[in-house]
Amino acid sequence: MPHLSNAARDYSRAHAERFRQELHEMLRIPSLSGDPAHAGDIRRMAEWLAAHMQGLGLDKVAVMETAGHPVVYGEWTGAGADKPTVLVYGHYDVVPAALEDGWHTDPFEPVEKDGKIYARGATDDKGQLFIHVKALESWLKTAGAAPVNVKFLIEGEEEVSSPNLVPFLKSHLDLLRTDVCIISDSSMRSIEEPSILHSLRGMTYMEIEVQGPSDDLHSGLWGGAAHNPALALVEILGQLYHPDNTIAVPGFYDDVAPLTPEERAMIAKTDLSEEQYRQSTGVPALWGDAAYTIRERISARPTLDINGMWSGWTGPGPKTIVPAKAGCKISSRLVGNQDPHKIFDLIKRFIESIAPPTVRVDVRLITTGKAALFPFDIPEMQAAARAYEKGWGATPVFTRGGGSIPVVAEIADLMGIPVVMMGYGLDDDGLHSPNERFSIEMFARGIETAIVYLEELVESA
Amino acid sequence: MPHLSNAARDYSRAHAERFRQELHEMLRIPSLSGDPAHAGDIRRMAEWLAAHMQGLGLDKVAVMETAGHPVVYGEWTGAGADKPTVLVYGHYDVVPAALEDGWHTDPFEPVEKDGKIYARGATDDKGQLFIHVKALESWLKTAGAAPVNVKFLIEGEEEVSSPNLVPFLKSHLDLLRTDVCIISDSSMRSIEEPSILHSLRGMTYMEIEVQGPSDDLHSGLWGGAAHNPALALVEILGQLYHPDNTIAVPGFYDDVAPLTPEERAMIAKTDLSEEQYRQSTGVPALWGDAAYTIRERISARPTLDINGMWSGWTGPGPKTIVPAKAGCKISSRLVGNQDPHKIFDLIKRFIESIAPPTVRVDVRLITTGKAALFPFDIPEMQAAARAYEKGWGATPVFTRGGGSIPVVAEIADLMGIPVVMMGYGLDDDGLHSPNERFSIEMFARGIETAIVYLEELVESA
Repeated sequence: MPHLSNAARDYSRAHAERFRQELHEMLRIPSLSGDPAHAGDIRRMAEWLAAHMQGLGLDKVAVMETAGHPVVYGEWTGAGADKPTVLVYGHYDVVPAALEDGWHTDPFEPVEKDGKIYARGATDDKGQLFIHVKALESWLKTAGAAPVNVKFLIEGEEEVSSPNLVPFLKSHLDLLRTDVCIISDSSMRSIEEPSILHSLRGMTYMEIEVQGPSDDLHSGLWGGAAHNPALALVEILGQLYHPDNTIAVPGFYDDVAPLTPEERAMIAKTDLSEEQYRQSTGVPALWGDAAYTIRERISARPTLDINGMWSGWTGPGPKTIVPAKAGCKISSRLVGNQDPHKIFDLIKRFIESIAPPTVRVDVRLITTGKAALFPFDIPEMQAAARAYEKGWGATPVFTRGGGSIPVVAEIADLMGIPVVMMGYGLDDDGLHSPNERFSIEMFARGIETAIVYLEELVESA
Repeated sequence: MPHLSNAARDYSRAHAERFRQELHEMLRIPSLSGDPAHAGDIRRMAEWLAAHMQGLGLDKVAVMETAGHPVVYGEWTGAGADKPTVLVYGHYDVVPAALEDGWHTDPFEPVEKDGKIYARGATDDKGQLFIHVKALESWLKTAGAAPVNVKFLIEGEEEVSSPNLVPFLKSHLDLLRTDVCIISDSSMRSIEEPSILHSLRGMTYMEIEVQGPSDDLHSGLWGGAAHNPALALVEILGQLYHPDNTIAVPGFYDDVAPLTPEERAMIAKTDLSEEQYRQSTGVPALWGDAAYTIRERISARPTLDINGMWSGWTGPGPKTIVPAKAGCKISSRLVGNQDPHKIFDLIKRFIESIAPPTVRVDVRLITTGKAALFPFDIPEMQAAARAYEKGWGATPVFTRGGGSIPVVAEIADLMGIPVVMMGYGLDDDGLHSPNERFSIEMFARGIETAIVYLEELVESA
């Protein structure tokens, strides 16, 4: 149907101005999920989206309740049961924004300037999720149908860690049955370098507390016969790494999926030089597992980082104590197929095995998130690559994201489908910062790419 | 002159009630050295003391200016140049106290109850310094003379670390020329177990800062190729100790005066059992250099303790960063003849030598204090032991204090004299706490012991 997608693309160009005005309407609603004072705005946003989908002719449109903020659902299944079905995941909630944080204009009154739309949520994620709504509209209003079936799952709690999404998925598996999930909630380096994320790192985040004496001790009266808990913590943490900067916890790497030569070749396309890494971070020299390139270390290999550490006196000047306690937060970024709970158990068991009897050590889990890893040679990924070539006008690279979006692995595991992350933002769009913005050109080219993707999905089915 | 000291002791008993009323007068003056609002009270206290000494017939009585609060000076040198001269050091300033901290009565309105005087400064140090004033009075009012010459140096900044005392000593060395210094500003375990401190530990206190990236990094986007500064700090601190819990800094023990068999035998008289140490501190098991007893470790051996440590996120929940910085405060308790500045240089050089090139490490000195160590077989110490036997009624032990009072070493070094620390407080007198108190019996027996000490000093000269 290449001719049909051309009509849809023409439609999207002809209606670009209106599409943006509609996006502005969404951006005017301050749908902050973390602030109970905005519960009414959240509801208004969900209802706006539902009404909009209804107006486009989608079926089963509903504002569906959860234990928290509602999910907006809507579907178009006119392509028929023999055609693939795609699930579009997005989120309509945003993080806080206020003029006094450094915004040049009201964060909830969108302004177009220098080819960008400035507003909270412009790129994260209202603008990006709306791309898929407008792509479907463009098909329906031209061909009267889309090449594949489309279901929308737009949640309102992404910015507060999606506490109610997994229960929602579990209780609506039939409704949500699809062949592939597409998420546009990430970014590329520049408009000429589109990328498709096929992997995210998982996470095991924990806290360690070491207790020595019951209370802080006067170091003069008692020091010398009590194991300083900060020293004990230091001795424990110092054993977590081998001298070659690999992680010393037995079994830690057991489930890491090895990098294939093809993957390493793909990763090499976006490698960073030492100089680039130093400039971006300010570190005096690079560190890490020398068996891997810089890009591999920060995206395709697991880590174990101290995120915070505390003990005793941290104010100005001297205080001569043996502290009662020392603690730290440590977290591991995980890669497929490491299980976050198994990794927690391994680390906890290792720490307990090396903890000296002179202190009491407690290792507590704080949070976990599963890693996600999809092969980039599967049809759904290759269709995305072709969509960028035809719709965007540039060949994309497949990249691994070093960060963690636990919902991606949850969707993949619960529904048994791959997740294709086609981010239409730019790395410097300022998400979660003042003056968040979304490029008007990216918005328009994103809609065209999304239009083509629906067509390419049929080809690959 | 044993018969003469008997008369002086009788006098002190006959005037015990008045002595306490005079002490009450001192205790009513809230001479807080750390609070500028009390500068007038400090001055009033100094003038009260000077007037009191003047009334007893002392010479050269003066409120002498410093860059901070004044020093009160007075002397009686009627014993003649062929007799020893003793310098009594004390301090008339106190730490803050307020009813709302948990005092049962007004901290600046002394109350006698159950054989104790309750008031801020009762034991620290107004009551203890006044013992020596009243001992001298008892000699002068009975024999018309004391067996030795006595000079008083009572400062008003001890509780704020004596910032102006060393300059004062240096500019008045002639005036202060003496043969021995006596300080009563410490305590004993129980009234039956008097002790003489012949050693104090010194101190080198420093701060270490490790800088990794310029700012906190997103651990997902950058983690794996940056040396986490908290990990780097941990790796550095983990090398400060050998596995046998001795300090690994090269040269650290070079200047430690070895413990003689006589000293070890003396220290054994006050040793702590593991059970006692565990009960007092709450630690699950003892730690330290197994070549030394518990009491030796906490009083006669040097230490290196982490007093505080910090890095990154220490609030509740997770924050996934590679922190920009990590830091800690570490301090060494030193013993004779370790030089605090030399020890700082050794530790700094060692840390710099093991610091990895992947981070920037800064080691800064915060404060130092010299250790003090006097042999207990010198005549001035033995005279004190006899004074306890005859005046107190019990044989004292010579003990090493694990804490640090830098002024002791300064007096010894600048003036070339030993310092005898005869503490008349009790360990549970609550100094620096609510309801500070001083035993009326300790006050009386202290005056009699001080009377005898002046006599015994002649014998040993």
